[in-house]
Amino acid sequence: MQASSFVRGERLWRHQAEMARFGATPGGGIDRQAFTAAEIAARQALLGWARARGYAASLDGIANLFIRRPGRRDDLAPVLVGSHLDSQPQGGRFDGTYGVLAGFEALEALDDSGITTERPVELVAWSNEEGSRFRPGAMGSQVFVGALAAEALAGAQGNDGVPLAQALAATRDAFAGVPRRAAAPVHAPVHAYVEAHIEQGPVLEQLGAPIGVVTGVAGARWFDVTLSGRTAHAGTTPLAARQDALQAALRCIAALNDAMADPADRLRFTVGRLTVAPNVPNSVASLARFSIDLRHPDAAELEARAGRIATACAAAAPPCALRIEETMTMPPAPFDPGIAALIEARARALGLAVHRLPSGAFHDAAFLGRICPAGMIFIPCAGGISHNEAENVTPEDALAGACVLADVLGALAGA
Amino acid sequence: MQASSFVRGERLWRHQAEMARFGATPGGGIDRQAFTAAEIAARQALLGWARARGYAASLDGIANLFIRRPGRRDDLAPVLVGSHLDSQPQGGRFDGTYGVLAGFEALEALDDSGITTERPVELVAWSNEEGSRFRPGAMGSQVFVGALAAEALAGAQGNDGVPLAQALAATRDAFAGVPRRAAAPVHAPVHAYVEAHIEQGPVLEQLGAPIGVVTGVAGARWFDVTLSGRTAHAGTTPLAARQDALQAALRCIAALNDAMADPADRLRFTVGRLTVAPNVPNSVASLARFSIDLRHPDAAELEARAGRIATACAAAAPPCALRIEETMTMPPAPFDPGIAALIEARARALGLAVHRLPSGAFHDAAFLGRICPAGMIFIPCAGGISHNEAENVTPEDALAGACVLADVLGALAGA
Repeated sequence: MQASSFVRGERLWRHQAEMARFGATPGGGIDRQAFTAAEIAARQALLGWARARGYAASLDGIANLFIRRPGRRDDLAPVLVGSHLDSQPQGGRFDGTYGVLAGFEALEALDDSGITTERPVELVAWSNEEGSRFRPGAMGSQVFVGALAAEALAGAQGNDGVPLAQALAATRDAFAGVPRRAAAPVHAPVHAYVEAHIEQGPVLEQLGAPIGVVTGVAGARWFDVTLSGRTAHAGTTPLAARQDALQAALRCIAALNDAMADPADRLRFTVGRLTVAPNVPNSVASLARFSIDLRHPDAAELEARAGRIATACAAAAPPCALRIEETMTMPPAPFDPGIAALIEARARALGLAVHRLPSGAFHDAAFLGRICPAGMIFIPCAGGISHNEAENVTPEDALAGACVLADVLGALAGA
Repeated sequence: MQASSFVRGERLWRHQAEMARFGATPGGGIDRQAFTAAEIAARQALLGWARARGYAASLDGIANLFIRRPGRRDDLAPVLVGSHLDSQPQGGRFDGTYGVLAGFEALEALDDSGITTERPVELVAWSNEEGSRFRPGAMGSQVFVGALAAEALAGAQGNDGVPLAQALAATRDAFAGVPRRAAAPVHAPVHAYVEAHIEQGPVLEQLGAPIGVVTGVAGARWFDVTLSGRTAHAGTTPLAARQDALQAALRCIAALNDAMADPADRLRFTVGRLTVAPNVPNSVASLARFSIDLRHPDAAELEARAGRIATACAAAAPPCALRIEETMTMPPAPFDPGIAALIEARARALGLAVHRLPSGAFHDAAFLGRICPAGMIFIPCAGGISHNEAENVTPEDALAGACVLADVLGALAGA
């Protein structure tokens, strides 16, 4: 008997609905940013369900919350499953939350099926994945794997002016009865990590595939491009005498559109932010600054495309001056092929259509992949809409993802 | 003997320097917005110089300040000369101020040359030409000519929260000893109006012509163009699934660049403002809104070009939704050909090179042209830079403009 036979869609959907109360927004989404009262309440609800099942909990220094289902050999490195309960300021009910609840459903299904695994299985609610209140995002998983030193965060402050140290202390105080895990070295050996998540894109829905086997997380490079011209009176200045920074920015973006064309459709190129000064109707713009968000699952291709930015912009900028700054770089994080194969096999065994795809969004799993074999299971989300109050999934897809997750965890932990 | 023989460049330049103290900014410009203490102080300095010459002053309901040099027949409609003493928040020392001081210099030159004119000549410092603190701009001249009813301004409030009524009262209080002019009907007959001004563009400087004969003020039409798409995750959303409002705005502006191309270089087309939402690097833009400032001295051509906007944008907007709103319209204001001919003749008589050009900027003269023959004299400004602390002119050009103005006023008033 597979654990998936004991996954209960109604229970999972009810947990999802109960979680959606914490930080609920009038628009049907959630505002549950990291370490806020709403996010602490969501974690406490999870803790309550875990205690009712008899699972032990623990909290580490960055306030990652662990729920442990013991194995036959509790000395073996655990299989980890998880995601995050924090959200964007106007976020949806499923981003992160679905992965935590699907993980919890998998633990319950393992219990209900009477399976005792060889290894312990630990469910983790990672701290501050979104990074909207405190930067950087994926804070909990980065600290856990040693990619980020807790000391580097000493002076961090939230958008709301609250010091990170204060928010962390408040979170830890709220879980005063929960045993602490060692803070350093930050992680014990981990056997494997699996994370379920909504796709946050339209591919699975369009293909009608309930299960996405995630091949890795695309690398990303961010740039700020600044065009400096000269402001001038809109009514009096002939075209030839203008150094119009807005028009120069437009030429740069048009050139970048060409340079980033990708018939294979694996590249993601986005100009999401553009600011102009003085930004009034009757003055030629003296300054325009835009962002570039470039992502590709292949490191060589990502580097090659990033290398085209300077050339494309340099040709388009004159007579304005050009400055390009790289503001963020994140290498591609391919997932373990063995985990991907296992996910695909378990999904097919359940009669579920699968599609292999990279994740263009960052996830905690990308960091876990640095210390253990890791993988992700995507489920479709309505219209590909995410980071949005309208974010939605079907109960059927939510169930399918949890079923695959339960069987994958069982296999990894040695059922 | 012409009045121009008695125009004194040093005196004019000294007055210019003294005026530049009122509202002086650290960057060498002025912040002397309408009805502020600094602008009132500038008017009081002018009033002091006028009284020292024995000129009578008066103030009307919108606080336009009049300085009167009597004629032989004081019952005849006066010749008006003027400009404004208010500035942009980070304005230059010459925009407006030069025209007032050149007008005052012309009055002094008429005095010093012993000329008694048939008609009175009145110098006016128009209220609130810039419109940066209180809207609309050209407030004083619009009220004077009856284009704007004082009642329509009853509820007006400044950017700084001060009600217009309060600012006006403070200005009138500061000139308590100055006789009032009738408020309604708002204007007495005016024989002619002449205004000297810096060009605020680069044309005269490039041509090496110290005198611009202004043929009229270009008409202007302003539009706001809004593109509505759908925000989406930059990392996960394929190009084909995007409704990227920023990219749609770029396509619209590129199409407009083509539609507004003008080999004759008389059209002025500017996109000066562009705002984007949510305006973050990792989200596809759901909304982009940009301004169009379109100007042409010819009414038919202005209308024809404005008529191309909807077509150009409609082809470029999909898959985003398009909305176009006209936010302002100002018909072209051609100046009186007789005044223009007079300016040109007097300049040539002084051996000054002239160039005929329209004004792309608005001026009080455009409104005065509705009630009397009107014209403008431009002088070059350095690099065409205006509405900027770096605004500058040469003493030689300032002198040339005042000489032409003095002779034109003498001719119009009947020397």
